Amino acid sequence: MSESATISDGMISVEREGDLCVLNWTDGRKEGFHSLWLRDNCQCADCLHPQTRERLFDLMTLDPNSDLIDHLETQNGSLFVTWSDGHQSQFSERWLHEHAYGEDARQARREKPTLWTSEVKNSLPEINYEKVMSGDEGLLSFLDMLCDYGFALIRQTPTRDLEVTRVASRISFLRETNFGREFDVISKPNPNNVAYTALELQSHSDLPNWEVPPGTQFLHCLEFDAEGGESTLVDGFAAARQLQSMSPEDFDLLCQLRIPFRFHDSDWDIRRSATTLALDSFEELEEIRFHSALTAPLDIPSDQVLPFYRAYRALTEIIRKPENILKLKLRPGDLLVFNNRRALHGRAAFDPNTGPRHLQGCYVDNDDVMSKRRVLRRRL
Amino acid sequence: MSESATISDGMISVEREGDLCVLNWTDGRKEGFHSLWLRDNCQCADCLHPQTRERLFDLMTLDPNSDLIDHLETQNGSLFVTWSDGHQSQFSERWLHEHAYGEDARQARREKPTLWTSEVKNSLPEINYEKVMSGDEGLLSFLDMLCDYGFALIRQTPTRDLEVTRVASRISFLRETNFGREFDVISKPNPNNVAYTALELQSHSDLPNWEVPPGTQFLHCLEFDAEGGESTLVDGFAAARQLQSMSPEDFDLLCQLRIPFRFHDSDWDIRRSATTLALDSFEELEEIRFHSALTAPLDIPSDQVLPFYRAYRALTEIIRKPENILKLKLRPGDLLVFNNRRALHGRAAFDPNTGPRHLQGCYVDNDDVMSKRRVLRRRL
Repeated sequence: MSESATISDGMISVEREGDLCVLNWTDGRKEGFHSLWLRDNCQCADCLHPQTRERLFDLMTLDPNSDLIDHLETQNGSLFVTWSDGHQSQFSERWLHEHAYGEDARQARREKPTLWTSEVKNSLPEINYEKVMSGDEGLLSFLDMLCDYGFALIRQTPTRDLEVTRVASRISFLRETNFGREFDVISKPNPNNVAYTALELQSHSDLPNWEVPPGTQFLHCLEFDAEGGESTLVDGFAAARQLQSMSPEDFDLLCQLRIPFRFHDSDWDIRRSATTLALDSFEELEEIRFHSALTAPLDIPSDQVLPFYRAYRALTEIIRKPENILKLKLRPGDLLVFNNRRALHGRAAFDPNTGPRHLQGCYVDNDDVMSKRRVLRRRL
Repeated sequence: MSESATISDGMISVEREGDLCVLNWTDGRKEGFHSLWLRDNCQCADCLHPQTRERLFDLMTLDPNSDLIDHLETQNGSLFVTWSDGHQSQFSERWLHEHAYGEDARQARREKPTLWTSEVKNSLPEINYEKVMSGDEGLLSFLDMLCDYGFALIRQTPTRDLEVTRVASRISFLRETNFGREFDVISKPNPNNVAYTALELQSHSDLPNWEVPPGTQFLHCLEFDAEGGESTLVDGFAAARQLQSMSPEDFDLLCQLRIPFRFHDSDWDIRRSATTLALDSFEELEEIRFHSALTAPLDIPSDQVLPFYRAYRALTEIIRKPENILKLKLRPGDLLVFNNRRALHGRAAFDPNTGPRHLQGCYVDNDDVMSKRRVLRRRL
């Protein structure tokens, strides 16, 4: 779970091997850094703006064919480099450790989420409102759960109008969309979205028709006396991995083929083509876009149409398996928070004549969520 | 430039060829639609919500192995299908034409931007403030220029505080970032960003460290009496194509290799890895991320480090060629608007002691820009 490992050993010497400066550590490990990489990342005030921490060094000032290094040495836990043009750089042991890019070092920095099925019900990631609101530590615990599981429940949230905004604003500003900055999920006449009816909503991700669908969704239960209307959550990453093991070619297709999504009403016509699944450079899942309601007529090469439908059916079957679905009947005061790029959400149909069901929601983007988590970790 | 071609010919008959329903048009063209695709896109009120235009039909209700179609015919410019379960669908000639997905039809719907070099100076895409603000037609002309060239100039914009917001709000709500909803580009003490100094800024894209960097940037010149400080723009897509023809392997590497970007100050730590160039499914350029100041120490496989630096240098050389750089000295009242995912911007250094230079800026995301353009086209 940690993004920056703590340093447990020291750097003892450095030697050149071709383009690389190879550091030897007390535990026997070697880490290679390219000379050009080191020059590009000089930490001095002329190369890195002291206030903004932005790079000032201009790579184009170097002769790409010259030997860059004049002298190298390690001393007092730092690497000192004298460049052939006389410029000098110093890199601390800690900084080098945190920025090493050998395969092992890169792997060690990866975050690996905890995938789940309906059994997560027995150990829900949940936390009390007071903890989240009163200090950095509670907020960080909440963010850790959210990042690990893709969702978390905040309990005993005061059922005040727009309290959801106050909680979300602990992290960052809100992500505005065509549905506004905040939205009320109630049964409405003349809805412009199926969410605003009393119909069942199969598990889906919100707004896949945006280039970046909203990251983290906050859904605060203000009133709930209606029959039915249980909330559902499915770990989209777990579902995707199940598909991968059952049918790798379907998984691959859904990672590669962009399909069109669209929302349109009288004021908006927002369209985006994107893959159903997306992987990062470590082949770790980073996104699922899954919402039949907003999937536009497929505008893909004709020979991909039937393979897509086959793969999509296979994924849908997995997503609808009861053992993959976490069912939650939200109570007033529950604030369900989930990563809309990972956790698919839905609800059972409800009967609006049996009582009110009123959720209030908003979004904060995941860049902001992860930024806040990093800043809190730095502070705590 | 058009997203939906007008229909110039009619549909005369339909026949089945395996999984496909093949339509014959009066001009001799044939368009194949898969039966399953047609069923999935039934336009009736049970399958497509009449208000929300969202799909209600559930693909999982079909038996994937059955023959779906009972009967097919064309009549009065529509295709009528009776499905084997008795359900009936009707598709208009126009709708089928707009949604055909044969290779030719897909190609015909592509938008092809006009690439440019510094010579665009002789025919700048520019428009008067009054036109943009007073009617849909002027706004659409402005959006057409912006989408085609990746930038446009609005002249004679009143030099009022936050007028930039009023213009941007003609399109949509603003995209907020860690720099706020609006920002003032002036020389500041203790800047948290190089833009807020008087230093030269090489051509770059803003905020590549966000999952989605801001789409369209609005920069309104309120005051400008300083010496120097000319604005520069480079067509990043044109530069990328120049690289592709000179050195295809460098181009490919920049399309494939994700590199890390980061902004951090006391309140934020926003990181994202992304490719320098990105292509859509037609291999059309859709993005360039280029900002040395926010490029974090490369955290990529070691054997990619030197190839990346080589490719990056080659691209940088092209971007800095004078013949690729449009230079503009903004005057009070000029509002420069550009697609931050395509047009790289910069400025010459200026001397803040010779007079003020004050720009005010904000962002609107490209999803919103394109949505507004579609809605205006529908109306006009």
